[in-house]
Order: sequence, then structure tokens, then C-alpha cells
Amino acid sequence: MDFSSFLTSLSTSFVIFVVLMVLFARLSSRPGNKVIYYPNRLLKGMDPFEGGNYASRNLFAWISEAFSSSERDVIAMSGVDTAVYFVFLSTVLGILVLSGIVLLPVLLPVAATAKTPTTSSNTTSNGTFSDLDKLSMGNVAEKNSRLWAFLIATYWVSIVAYYLLWKAYKHVSALRATALMSPEVRAEQFAVLVRDIPPAPVGQPIKEQVDSYFKSIYPDTFYRSMIVTNNKEVNKIYEELELCKKRLVRAETIFAASKTTAKPEGTRPTNKTGFLGLVGEKVDSIEYYSGKIRELTPKLEAEQKATLRDKQQAAAVVFFTSRVTAGAAAQSLHATMLDTWNVMDAPEPCQIIWTNLTIKFFQRQTRQYIIYIIVALTIFFYMIPITFVSAFTTLENLKKYLPFLKPIVNIAAIRTVLEAYLPQIALIVFLALLPKLLLFLSKLEGIPSQSHIERAASGKYFYFTVLNVFIGVTIGGTLFATFKDIEKHPNTLITKLASSLPGNATFFLTYVALKFFVGYGLELSRIVPLIIFHLKRKYICKTEAEVKEAWYPGDLGYATRVPGDMLIVTITLCYSVIAPLIIPFGVVYFGLGWLILRNQALKVYVPSYESYGRMWPHMHLRILAALVLYQLTMFAYIGAKKFVYAPFLVPLIIMSLIFSYVCNKKFYRFFCCPALEVAAHELKETPHMERIFRTYVPPSLCSGKVEDDQFEDALSHVSRAGSFA
Amino acid sequence: MDFSSFLTSLSTSFVIFVVLMVLFARLSSRPGNKVIYYPNRLLKGMDPFEGGNYASRNLFAWISEAFSSSERDVIAMSGVDTAVYFVFLSTVLGILVLSGIVLLPVLLPVAATAKTPTTSSNTTSNGTFSDLDKLSMGNVAEKNSRLWAFLIATYWVSIVAYYLLWKAYKHVSALRATALMSPEVRAEQFAVLVRDIPPAPVGQPIKEQVDSYFKSIYPDTFYRSMIVTNNKEVNKIYEELELCKKRLVRAETIFAASKTTAKPEGTRPTNKTGFLGLVGEKVDSIEYYSGKIRELTPKLEAEQKATLRDKQQAAAVVFFTSRVTAGAAAQSLHATMLDTWNVMDAPEPCQIIWTNLTIKFFQRQTRQYIIYIIVALTIFFYMIPITFVSAFTTLENLKKYLPFLKPIVNIAAIRTVLEAYLPQIALIVFLALLPKLLLFLSKLEGIPSQSHIERAASGKYFYFTVLNVFIGVTIGGTLFATFKDIEKHPNTLITKLASSLPGNATFFLTYVALKFFVGYGLELSRIVPLIIFHLKRKYICKTEAEVKEAWYPGDLGYATRVPGDMLIVTITLCYSVIAPLIIPFGVVYFGLGWLILRNQALKVYVPSYESYGRMWPHMHLRILAALVLYQLTMFAYIGAKKFVYAPFLVPLIIMSLIFSYVCNKKFYRFFCCPALEVAAHELKETPHMERIFRTYVPPSLCSGKVEDDQFEDALSHVSRAGSFA
Repeated sequence: MDFSSFLTSLSTSFVIFVVLMVLFARLSSRPGNKVIYYPNRLLKGMDPFEGGNYASRNLFAWISEAFSSSERDVIAMSGVDTAVYFVFLSTVLGILVLSGIVLLPVLLPVAATAKTPTTSSNTTSNGTFSDLDKLSMGNVAEKNSRLWAFLIATYWVSIVAYYLLWKAYKHVSALRATALMSPEVRAEQFAVLVRDIPPAPVGQPIKEQVDSYFKSIYPDTFYRSMIVTNNKEVNKIYEELELCKKRLVRAETIFAASKTTAKPEGTRPTNKTGFLGLVGEKVDSIEYYSGKIRELTPKLEAEQKATLRDKQQAAAVVFFTSRVTAGAAAQSLHATMLDTWNVMDAPEPCQIIWTNLTIKFFQRQTRQYIIYIIVALTIFFYMIPITFVSAFTTLENLKKYLPFLKPIVNIAAIRTVLEAYLPQIALIVFLALLPKLLLFLSKLEGIPSQSHIERAASGKYFYFTVLNVFIGVTIGGTLFATFKDIEKHPNTLITKLASSLPGNATFFLTYVALKFFVGYGLELSRIVPLIIFHLKRKYICKTEAEVKEAWYPGDLGYATRVPGDMLIVTITLCYSVIAPLIIPFGVVYFGLGWLILRNQALKVYVPSYESYGRMWPHMHLRILAALVLYQLTMFAYIGAKKFVYAPFLVPLIIMSLIFSYVCNKKFYRFFCCPALEVAAHELKETPHMERIFRTYVPPSLCSGKVEDDQFEDALSHVSRAGSFA
Repeated sequence: MDFSSFLTSLSTSFVIFVVLMVLFARLSSRPGNKVIYYPNRLLKGMDPFEGGNYASRNLFAWISEAFSSSERDVIAMSGVDTAVYFVFLSTVLGILVLSGIVLLPVLLPVAATAKTPTTSSNTTSNGTFSDLDKLSMGNVAEKNSRLWAFLIATYWVSIVAYYLLWKAYKHVSALRATALMSPEVRAEQFAVLVRDIPPAPVGQPIKEQVDSYFKSIYPDTFYRSMIVTNNKEVNKIYEELELCKKRLVRAETIFAASKTTAKPEGTRPTNKTGFLGLVGEKVDSIEYYSGKIRELTPKLEAEQKATLRDKQQAAAVVFFTSRVTAGAAAQSLHATMLDTWNVMDAPEPCQIIWTNLTIKFFQRQTRQYIIYIIVALTIFFYMIPITFVSAFTTLENLKKYLPFLKPIVNIAAIRTVLEAYLPQIALIVFLALLPKLLLFLSKLEGIPSQSHIERAASGKYFYFTVLNVFIGVTIGGTLFATFKDIEKHPNTLITKLASSLPGNATFFLTYVALKFFVGYGLELSRIVPLIIFHLKRKYICKTEAEVKEAWYPGDLGYATRVPGDMLIVTITLCYSVIAPLIIPFGVVYFGLGWLILRNQALKVYVPSYESYGRMWPHMHLRILAALVLYQLTMFAYIGAKKFVYAPFLVPLIIMSLIFSYVCNKKFYRFFCCPALEVAAHELKETPHMERIFRTYVPPSLCSGKVEDDQFEDALSHVSRAGSFA
């Protein structure tokens, strides 16, 4: 890639960005689009924007709104998790800005005025890309004393990172504490999850066993328990019933709509009863769904009762009347064996993965390790399934298994394109599926909460991107080109790899620029959701509920967003000293990201759960991992320059490990379990325990006509007086 | 060592053993010696033995008494820790017996009938020690299919070990649970240690800060707190006072004794006031010590008050009125940062290391790692300090620094002996000092309880003995002899080491035999304490208290006893298949040990603390470490025999690691912190909180004339009503 093509790529991205920004300014001021650009505010019952007048708004009003918003606004609109994500963005931004202030004015002149090294092997970039190359470390000769500047720069970046990370961890700790000590009653602070309940003695229901167990340990603060049931059947019926209700409303809406026109009696909508509504008998929709609802409602009630009575499983949610007791119980060993009566703090009801609660202790452990092995294999050998899929998706196979494609495939032009792109398409499909796969695998581990699953998947994805994208791109070519050499002298591997670093800097410059111009442009303008929404509203949605479903915004999606940012952190850090020009790009990425996501957090996305900043330790650890990778890279690269003082970087690596250890020891435990000091803060009101309990009952079990009494009977086999003690 | 010298050594040891046994039988039946042979029973206010008639006792009555004693007796007489030590002994005994039953009848014929290997390099034992060698695995030729028997034997021993260890861990867990759920009130179950108390706000005493902190978290169950004070000064005065009191009693006893004789007015004892009572003015003892006591008592009182008021430190013992709350508090995070308000379960008052309580969190961590490094260096380079000491203790240096030795050293005979033995003496002194050094180092780590320090020292000593004695002896010679070879081909190291194994078997046979015959003979007969006691009583002791001090027996001494046994476990396991003849020796060691220590535990030793079996996980882990070492040895040795199926042992090693992981996960946590289920058991009586609190006040602070009121005032700055809530 030469200099002009670099500029072309950059300016193209920039043009796309400008176009998207203009689109955003135009589209977001239209009242009809407010559900796309302000759904979070609308759902919270607020005006889309304070003024209320769409037309008179300044095109850049959103920028000043984003800047003027405080952390408290973010927490109020989008929760602690989002605020923590902004701490992450601003910490990285701070590291890059502070590094850039020193590194750019110092290192660029040092590199530019250095003589071109006598051995030309270090300028590995192809073509005549000399202008940018001159500004990188590749321009400094071996053993040159100018390398001191780069070595000290490595220290500077690291120390800035330690300082800001330490401050950020303290700040996030305080954010979490403030949220947890809030006087608002939050159901999850009064509950614990109990797993691995041992088999009850014969004749004793699990419910009674759990109640008497916890009542004996917490005679004063135990409220009641809720045994986890196998809800597979009841959920099926419940979903069917809900679907029928939705369809009935839809049919009624269509019928009503048809009435208002010339035909006053209207057209009664019809549907087919068979597969996907495509085949089968044609029936009157309103009658059909009303009938089905009448039929399903008693079935659901019967199934609810049967589930509560007979399908109790070896897990429970236990409620306490005090936050402190719940907090202490979540951290304490209850039985002498860890694989019975395992207690942990309860996540919010909406994010509990009920089916994972009943997995036994050692099965969870085993699953975890198996998943780790699978993920490690996926990371290291991810080319293998792609190759396999590519091999399968050859044209011959396509023709064989999907014969209806034959006429198309036989057209020469299409044939050529397909033959060229099929493997790439397989790669793209695989990469697009990867986050889903990782989420799926993390769920299989037996983790009981959605937020934890997303953290686990995000961690896995981070290692995948760093290993495959960053290291893969950097060293891939070098590795294969010089494979013979390395086999003979394994020690030269690091040298070889290190010497190929500066040549790849431009690739990553372009990559980062593309990411922020196009990525954040699309993010802000929300073109795709906008188009989908308008299409859906026009052709599919009939009822209010369906329209709302079409624009409902979803959450920030940490599982993919964080690893994506982490990749940029890794790239920018690793190249910060080698090619300091990358720092401004990193600054723009995180600065623009902060600005645009601030807008999105305040106005668009609705968090689907609240984990009170538990994501932070993961982010922190991964920034540190990137920092260590950076230090190792610098050690290898300065070593490859045959600079005898390269070992001066070893203390830095040890310092990073100690820093990580200290942070982990000091702060991490509070992110795993509630601190009692925090839980002991006073509440605004006496908690309404019955309401807290209700929030944990799955909707499929408490909906319908199941009376409270029946519910009570089914749930509580222990004497009524007892369970209200 | 040839066969006859092996037999000579064995029979010499046996003769010593028989002599010691006869001595024991004679000496223990004398009434005057009962304080040496039955101190534990005497201190518990029991008859030395049920019959009461010393003379009519059978010589071997102690054996039947030891056999007929139950585990409950051991717990009653010597505590849970001792009972757990017997579980350890009987588990190892079980492993060895079950292994021996299969291995001896199978492997000995297999080895004996094998042809002598063509390559004679494997029978490395010097001399003509062929008889025993024929019974070992060294007699089997390379690649011989008979090696299958040895491979399967390795599996058998391991599976027996897994089974018995699993059973033992369950049993010890149950023992611990039973002890902790006992209805007796034990002070330590109501208290927690609080460390790393953050600096109090200006003007607020630490006491008030701690009280209000815990009262806000545990409003119902908090009883009161006791701030740790810097007791250095007060302890000094207290000890001086106690010494004076003792001396006064002694002087009065001497005076009274002198009166009964011909001189009715008696001789008033005198002493010198200077250094060690050797120099200075001669004074009347009774008057002098009475005067000193009169002078010290108000000084102590003043110092007690000053200490309680002004020397409060950032650590405390906090008392709760409920075992469950104390148990939960000990496991819970209190502040958001782990390095403030760190809470852990309290050890017994007698074993708290007060000075370690005030060490800060990260200093503890740092100390720990520094100590680990020091210990690792000691283990690997323990010859260096010895060489250094040897070099220093040359005759020339001795003459230089200790000139009074000159005339002795100049005698030719003594000179020769000294020159020959000085390095060995240095080695022996160093080895004798090692346990003390390890205890000292472990204490420096900042561990707050004596039992934990002993566990930590015991672990360090284990690694020392296994690495230096076992591996050192086995491979030392080989390593240096073939150092050149190994440098060229590092892969042959294991082969070389493995092939030298069978030759060393006889050395260890003798070692084990010596250990049990002489070691346990001395243990049972208690010759050394007996002689010391009689000497002291005759020449030093005057008062009752002094006599009691002279015979007070001390405890089992886990810090050195357990690693000693562990070394035998390691040796016996590692040689069990290579030279199965070692198994009977191991069986005798642990059988005899069980029997003799049962006697000692029931009648002699008085435990100095109770940790409710916390030693067990350490024992378990080290038995497993020995097992893995054994499996690795077998893998290397069978590999050295060029047996292609040697990799069949790899699954076994993995199995050991999984077994260790599962045990650790399932059982270990209960040994770290109390299980609430256990703590929730009902008590016999309402705990007398004031008495519990008193047991934790150091004697130097609560003795003397400090009234309860004053104490109260000094300790409690918070309103009185509050602290009794």
C-alpha cells in the first residue's frame, strides 16, 4: 500500500462518514423517526429532546447534549454498566492522549532525522511507502543510541496506563458501591441462588427441606424460598397462548381497519392452520384464535399447578428480609461439602438462566473446562472449519445438493465470481457467527446469569481477535515466508516477527480509520434499523405491540462491542511507540466513540440487564493483557534492533504483573460479591417482601387465573405462619 | 552395603528398641515417674491408669489400652488435631497394607524368577548385594513383558490410595463438623479477627470507629469489640512481675524448708541483684522480691491503663452473640476494598500471634512472597550456608575469636577430631535449627495463629526433606558422576536418574528401620525428658510450680513430626513397586507409630492448641504430592527399561491431578472457614459473652488490681448501654 492509496482509503472513509452524519442530522429531526433515534427517552416517558420542536434544532445539538451530560445522567438513563463502559472509553482515551502528548513531538523527530539503517531488511513494507515509514521506529538503525528514546517512551506509556487504570478501578468501585447502597429496594439484593440441593429425605418435599434448612440458619431474616421447577412444558403452553393472544389482537385490528372503509361490515381475516400458515384448512382468524385461547387457558393452569407440585428441582431462590443477610449468605459456605447447598448472590430475575441453575457442581466444572478446551482449539485452528466449509461449498457440491441453483451457477460471469468468493463468504459467515457461537458455548458452561455469559463470551472473543486478527495479520506472512529458517533456529522467530512489525503499521492505521469513520457513522445514523423498521411497519406490523417490537432498540451488546474496542486498544498500544502516528487514530476512535455512544446511551439503547459494573474487572484485565503484549512486543523489537539495553524492559513487564496482582487483590472481590458495609446502608422504605418474591416468579408460572391462594398452596408446603416469620 | 551389614544394622536397631521397651516397662511402673509417663491424664485430674496399682500392671498393658481406645477417647484426651493425625497414620497404613497384600506375593516372584538383565548397568548397588537386589525391579530385563506386572501394580497402589484418601477426607470433614457443632460454648466460635482497620477520623478513637462500623452491619448480634494494643511495654513489666512472684515463692519455700531442720529460725535466702544473679549487692531475697512486687504492681496498673488508652492499633477482635453471624462475618467481604476491614475467623486466644495482627494487607502479601523465595533458595542451595559456616568454623577462626579454647584445640588428638568433624557438626547444627528457622520464617509471613504457622512450616519442611533427603540421596551420586553426559543430552537425565533407583533401596530400608526402632523406642521410653526432669527436680526446682514446669509435656509437635512421616510416605510409595520389600518396613513404621503415639496422645502429650483438623488438607495434599512423585518415578523408570507401554502411566498422573482438584474443590473450603450449617447447631446454654470476651484479653492486661470498671472504661469509649446491646 503506497502513500496515495492510504490517503484515498482514508478520504473515502471520511466521505462516507460525512454522508452518514448529514443523513443522521436530516433523519433524526423527522418526527416519524423518533422511535429510532430516541427510543430510550420515549420508553422512559420523556420528551425525545427538551425543546420539543424537531425542526428548529441545531444540526449539532446532540454533540453539546452528549458533552453536557454527566455520569449521573448516564446511570439514570442507561444504568451502571453503561457508565462503566464510558469509564473504559475515557480511560483508554486518557492513556492515548497523555501518551500522544509526549510521544508524538519527541519520537517523530527522533525517527525522522535518524539515518536510514544500513541493513535494509527492516523496511519490509512493499512499494515506496517511504514517507510514513520514515516516521516509524523502523527508520532507526540497529544499536543506535536513539533507541533510548523509544525505550523510555515505552515506560511512559506504561506508567500513564497504570495511573489511569488505578484511578478508573477506584472510580468504578465507587460507582458500584453507590449503586448497591442505594436506598431503593432492588429485588436481587434480597435474594440468593441456592444450587446443588442434596436429595430430600423420602417423603419430604424439596420446598420443606429448603425452608427448614435456611430457617434453622437464619431464624430471624429468612423470608421464604422459591424452588426452581422444570418449566419446559409450561413455557411451551404459555408461549403458544401468548402467540395466540397476539394473533387475535392482530386479527381484530385488521378487522377493525377493514370496517372503517367503504365496507362497513369489514372483511374477517382468515388464516391457514397448517405449517407456517401456508398450508391446511382456511379458518376465520378471530374465531380460531379465540377458540385456541379458550382451550389453552385451562391447560396452562393445570400445567402450572402440575409444575409447581411435581417438577421441583434441586435449586432454589431464597429470600431474606435483610440485604446484609442476603449478602453474607451469598459469600458463606453453608454445608461442609462445597458441592451441596451452594449459595451465590442472585442476579436480576430477568437475566437468570433457569435451566442452568439445576446443573450439578462438578458437572459445571467439567463443562467449563471442556468449553475452555473447545474455545482454545477454535482460536488456534479456526481456519480448519472454514476450510472444511469452503471445501463443502464448492460449486460442484452446490450443484449436487441444491440442484435448483444449477441454471444460475452455469452462467459464466456468476460462476467466476462465486468461485473466487465462496471461501471468503464462508470466512465472513463464520466470523459473523462467532459471537453467537461463543455466547452459546458460554451458556453451556452452566453460568446462571445473562450478564455473566456475556462477560465470558466477551473474554473469549477478545483472545480470538487478538490472536487471529492482530497477531495473525502482523506475523502471518513473515511466519510462512521464513518457516524454514525458524525451524532451524527457533530463537530467531521473535526477531523475525519483531522486524516485520513497522511494515504492518499502515494496514492497522487504515483499519482503525475504517472502524471509526464507517463503524461509528453507521452506529450514529442507525440506517439499518431505520430501514428495517420502516419496512416492517409498512408490510408486517398491524398492532401497536408489533410496531413497538419493530423499533425496540436492544442494548449496547457488550459481548461484541467490548472485544472490538479491545482489539483497537491492543493495536494502538502495541504500535504506539513503533509507529506513533497510530496514536491520533486511536484518540479519534475512542473520542468519537465516546461522543457517539454517549448519544446512543442517552437516547437509543435500553439496557437489558444491570450487573452493577461487573464488566469492569474484565475490561481492566484485558487492557493490562494488551499492555503486557505491548511491552513484550517492544522488548522483542528493541531486542531485534540489537540494542543491548533491551533487558531494561523486563522490570516493566514484572511491574505490570505486580500491578495486575495488586488490583486484583484489592478490588476484584467486591465485583464478585456484595460488601456488607455497602449492603448495610439504610433503605428508603421497608421492603415489600411479597413484591420482591413475585418478581422472581417466571411469567409462565404466575400469569393467567392462578389465584394467589393456589399459588401459595402449591409453593409452600411448610406451615403458612412459618414462611411469613 | 552388603547383605550382612544390612542385617547387622537392622539387628542393632532392634536390640536398641528392645532395650528401650524394657526400660519403658520398668520405669513407667514407678510412681515417681508418673509425671513423665502420664502427665496428660494427671493434668486432666485422672488416675494415671484405671487400676491405680502401679506394680501389678502387665508389662504390655499399654498396648491393649492403646488398641482398645476409640477415636472419641483420643478427641477427649487430646483434641481433634490429634485424632486427625491418627487418621493420617491409619490411612497411610491402610494404603501400604492393601498395596503389600497384592504387591508382595505377585511382584517378588515375578522379579526373582526373571533372568538377570544382559546390560548389567542397572544393578548399580556396590558390592555383592545380590540377594535383595534379585527381589527388586532392577532384576527384570529391558523390554521384558514382565514389566506389565509392575505397571499394573503402579495402578493398584494409586487406586488404593485414592480410595482411602477419599474416605479419610470425608471422615476428617465429619470429625471437624462434629467438633464445631458441639453444644459446648467455645470462645473462638463467637469471635472474628478484624485487620486493616482504616485510620479513624480525627478525634474518634479506633474503638468507637470499630464499634459503630460493626453495629451498623450487625445491629442484633454484635456484642462488643476489643482493640489490639501494642503490649510490648506492659508485657515486659508483667513478665518481670511474674518472675518476681515466682522468685518470692521460691525464696519462701527455701526459707520454710530451712526452718524445719535443727535451726528453727531458718536461714533467710539471699541473692545478688546484678546480671543473672551472679554479680552485684547481696540482699535478702524475700524482702527484695516483696519490695520489687510492691514497686512493680502500680507500675503495671499504670501501664495497663496507658496501653488500653493510647496504644490501640489498627486491628481488633470482634465478638458476636451468635455463632452463625461470626461464621458468616469471617467469610464475608465487609469493605469494598479488600485491604480495609479484612475479617477472618478468630483462632483460640492462646494461639493468636498478636504482633502479626497489625501487619497491613499488602505487607503480608509481600512478606509471604519474600519468605517463599527465601525458603525456595534455602531448599535449593542449603549447602551454601553450611559451607559458609564450615569455612568460618575452621580451627584458626575458632582460636581467633574464642581464645579461651586455644589450650584445648592445641591438643593433637582433639585437633584431629575437630578438623574432621567441624563441617559435619555445622551440617547437623543447621539441620537441627532448620525447623526453628522455618517456624520463624513462617511467623514473619504475618500469619495470625500458631497452628497456621506450624502448618506453613511443616509444608516448607516437607519440600525440604523430599528434595534434599529423598531426591538428593537417590540421584546425588548419579548426577555428579554423569554430569558431562547430561550436559550433552539433557533428555538422558531422567533415564540416568531412574536407573540408579533400585540401588538406593537398601539405604532407605535401613533408614526406615532406624527411624522406627530407635525413633519410636526413644519416643515411648521418654528417656531424655525423664533424665532432664530428675536432674531439674534434684538441683533446680524448689516450688511446686517449678516442678510442674519441669515435667510439663508439650504437644505432639506437628511442625516436625508430620514432615518426618511424610518423608517415609514418599520413600515407601516411590519404592513400593521398584523394591516391594520396603512395604513391610513402611507398614511397621506406621503401625508401630500408630500404637506408640496412641499411648503418648492418651497419656503424655498435652495439645497446646486446637485447630479442628485444619492440618488435614495439608497432609492430604502432600500424600498426593508423594503419589504423583511416585507415578513420575515409575513412568521414568519403566521408560528407562525401554518398555513401550510406559505412556500407559500418563493417564494415572492426570487422574491424580483430577483427584486432587476434586478433593480440593469439594472439601477444602470447609477447612478454611466455618460452614454455617454446622455453626447453626444449638448450644447447651446461652453463651456467657462477658466470659468469652475475657478469654481474649491478654493476661498482661487483665491481671493485677485493674478493676472491671476501669477496664470497662478504658476499653469502651462507646456508650455502655450500646456495647451490651
